[in-house]
Amino acid sequence: MADPGTVYLVGAGPGAPDLMTVRGARLLAAADIVFHDALVHPETLELATRAEKILVGKRCGRHSTAQRFINKRLVDAARTHRVVVRLKGGDPMLFGRAHEELSALQVAGITCEVVPGVTAALAASADLGISLTQRGVSRSVVFVTPRVAEGEGRRNGWAAAVAAADTAVIYMGAHEADKIAAALLDRGLPPGLPVVAIENASLPQSSHTALTLAELPRIAQTHHSGPVALLLGDVYAAALAARLPQPLKAALGQ
Amino acid sequence: MADPGTVYLVGAGPGAPDLMTVRGARLLAAADIVFHDALVHPETLELATRAEKILVGKRCGRHSTAQRFINKRLVDAARTHRVVVRLKGGDPMLFGRAHEELSALQVAGITCEVVPGVTAALAASADLGISLTQRGVSRSVVFVTPRVAEGEGRRNGWAAAVAAADTAVIYMGAHEADKIAAALLDRGLPPGLPVVAIENASLPQSSHTALTLAELPRIAQTHHSGPVALLLGDVYAAALAARLPQPLKAALGQ
Repeated sequence: MADPGTVYLVGAGPGAPDLMTVRGARLLAAADIVFHDALVHPETLELATRAEKILVGKRCGRHSTAQRFINKRLVDAARTHRVVVRLKGGDPMLFGRAHEELSALQVAGITCEVVPGVTAALAASADLGISLTQRGVSRSVVFVTPRVAEGEGRRNGWAAAVAAADTAVIYMGAHEADKIAAALLDRGLPPGLPVVAIENASLPQSSHTALTLAELPRIAQTHHSGPVALLLGDVYAAALAARLPQPLKAALGQ
Repeated sequence: MADPGTVYLVGAGPGAPDLMTVRGARLLAAADIVFHDALVHPETLELATRAEKILVGKRCGRHSTAQRFINKRLVDAARTHRVVVRLKGGDPMLFGRAHEELSALQVAGITCEVVPGVTAALAASADLGISLTQRGVSRSVVFVTPRVAEGEGRRNGWAAAVAAADTAVIYMGAHEADKIAAALLDRGLPPGLPVVAIENASLPQSSHTALTLAELPRIAQTHHSGPVALLLGDVYAAALAARLPQPLKAALGQ
């Protein structure tokens, strides 16, 4: 049998095809086979001109079965192809389930490289024009995925992590926005804490809503056509103030 | 006077020139003038074939004066050039002082766009092959810049934010590693907490050391040739175990 190929775990970035890295784009052009998530932009996939393209998006509630199947397909592909690309939305090492795939490849003796990508929180910040960190306001930023029903992490739960940081970005939380708001209010975060919900960051249809933590449950009731990031913290105070009608702002002395 | 140009705040990424985004690389090629930090790779600057290139790195202890001067130069440049690129290491919106520059440009009526980049923590994770998040171990990741001597942020200090998250990445902290370790131990973090210090992430000279929180002060005494990120959390337990001599690992039952 020939030597196995190399598997590249590549971050596709936040959505816009030209926000992928130069290295990622070159690897796609060289790829023999590409396994990709459902969220990867069609124009990004078009960069892989030579490759067979296989969608391996996971359905809700069937994660572990699907993940084992993906792991097996990556190992099998490396035994028959030279350049295997596993293309993930955002960055592979942040909420990308890279750990499972890297472990399976290592056990099988397959060489693997990770190519980082721009994560959604950074693209959202670019769209908004609001920095996650600001002198005198925020010097810590936490990224979390709350799964309200599941167990929590090492030392603390996700709500404690959000409460302790100056700025927080919640990934994949829009459909549970009501429970998230309740948990954070329980933790003692102020009802007036500024929140920005941003959908389809980096894409032409990018849109955002500024609201307070107390108003956040509204987001769970809205239909979303793409991924939503929730950004929380005092750095968004101006964005929240700007949404108020002008006469009201004047009355409030803003 | 002609219409002013546009200022693009562009993330150069973690160091390796091909880890910049495709959009960033195209903007550099189109730039008339580029203002860049000291940490930007020379090969990245070579992409700006047409542009005048100006180093605006800041010296320690003279931040605010230098920042006002940079703001003014950006505004002036936009009045005489069409495509002005402000190139920053990593991502502009995460520890990039973008807020000051965006505010100054807005006040001056200059159009500004932000192009996100790959931040150092993601490149470090790619180099290590260790995901920041892992199922059942970590679902929150905090990014902080401790300045032990200065005041702290909104609700909590940086040490509280580190303690509350499952994984933490400390930027620009190596020279204060002794004080950082003391503050985190004071907070009740375990002396055996796994830490990885990684220097020059994404570059050929990338190197890392796995150690415990109790051993972290050692990093402050080491000479560093490039930027260092400190990664803390149970996701690094295997990296820490791997550095032990094999007979000792056997004795410990690992």
